[in-house]
Amino acid sequence: MAIRKLYGTLGSPDTIRALASIFEHELDFEFIPIDLNAGEHKTESFLSLSPFGLVPVYQDDGLTLFESRAIMRFISHYYRKPGTELVYEVPKLQGIAATWIDVEDHQFSPPAEKLRQELVDKAKKGLPMDKEVVAEAEAKLVKVLDVYEERLTHSKYLGGDRFTSADLTHLPYLYHLMGTPVKQLFEERPNVSTWCKDILSRPCWSKVVEMVEKDKV
Amino acid sequence: MAIRKLYGTLGSPDTIRALASIFEHELDFEFIPIDLNAGEHKTESFLSLSPFGLVPVYQDDGLTLFESRAIMRFISHYYRKPGTELVYEVPKLQGIAATWIDVEDHQFSPPAEKLRQELVDKAKKGLPMDKEVVAEAEAKLVKVLDVYEERLTHSKYLGGDRFTSADLTHLPYLYHLMGTPVKQLFEERPNVSTWCKDILSRPCWSKVVEMVEKDKV
Repeated sequence: MAIRKLYGTLGSPDTIRALASIFEHELDFEFIPIDLNAGEHKTESFLSLSPFGLVPVYQDDGLTLFESRAIMRFISHYYRKPGTELVYEVPKLQGIAATWIDVEDHQFSPPAEKLRQELVDKAKKGLPMDKEVVAEAEAKLVKVLDVYEERLTHSKYLGGDRFTSADLTHLPYLYHLMGTPVKQLFEERPNVSTWCKDILSRPCWSKVVEMVEKDKV
Repeated sequence: MAIRKLYGTLGSPDTIRALASIFEHELDFEFIPIDLNAGEHKTESFLSLSPFGLVPVYQDDGLTLFESRAIMRFISHYYRKPGTELVYEVPKLQGIAATWIDVEDHQFSPPAEKLRQELVDKAKKGLPMDKEVVAEAEAKLVKVLDVYEERLTHSKYLGGDRFTSADLTHLPYLYHLMGTPVKQLFEERPNVSTWCKDILSRPCWSKVVEMVEKDKV
């Protein structure tokens, strides 16, 4: 029996953020799908794990965590190795990487989530997108990507000179948006484009994508 | 000359979050006020420190950080002692505290910020509050506080059995909201009420409040 469990739904960017972290650290785990459409996240048993009814939930040897970025931070600090070391040991470098985790959370994710809802979710449901919402979110994303383009002239990755959680945390939305016209906003910026291709091609991320795609069939 | 600088504005909850962290660790620093009304955060020199034009910015011996929670995390991990130790050394306990930092960020802050804007900012400017916005934010806050009430039956603090950054990060909005009718929502819940009074009465927090109040005169 796996000592680690991840409860979540593969359509959720937050769930696949935690998955990416688990795969990068080569951890054995059991994935337990939570059916949001059936309201499984609102049952008493699920709320006892995740009081706000949020996916994912991560269990590891008696510990229960929710909030995907907290899960990602825990895994990277607790396991460090085996697998990829996703944090810096030097506190100042770690402080910089932590800043870019929060940048993803506060600057990148809000417009990216809007665009995912409009261009991915609605398309799947055959609903028309709201052009105004898309234009507004694109305008915000452009400003964020301009900052990223400049940041990536100074270091190969957002958090520093090597791949860390600050990059990993972007993967869910990059994956979703690369299948939409928004892809162009990333491609127009040489440093951002190189960074995207680099992190999206990581073998561990391919394993996540494989799980997600298999789930769609 | 102080080796540490905090750039910000005392009316900003994010700025006073970082201040609280600095005071808890008894660090010498220089506070450099940024005048948001005069657009000082949009000048080229400020954007070179904080590319999204956000306050606060923290500088420490060659390191420049923005994003208040990243600053708080850095300070607590880098300095640990002197002052109050605001992180757990045991990774599992630290993982739990990290979860509640993200709960504040994602669940507590959004309605709290809405209420601060409506009940504090608008009142200061003599503008009428939007009752619908207030009602909606209050309803969201109530759900969050119900979870907190339950959480605080299991541990004295949100992050565990002692005061950590998971509690500290709530102080800015607690301070702002305690001067509004929303105070009642906190007082109605015994555990939340005890927790609020406890953390708001910390000597280090009094130093922050003193700076903020002095700035208002």
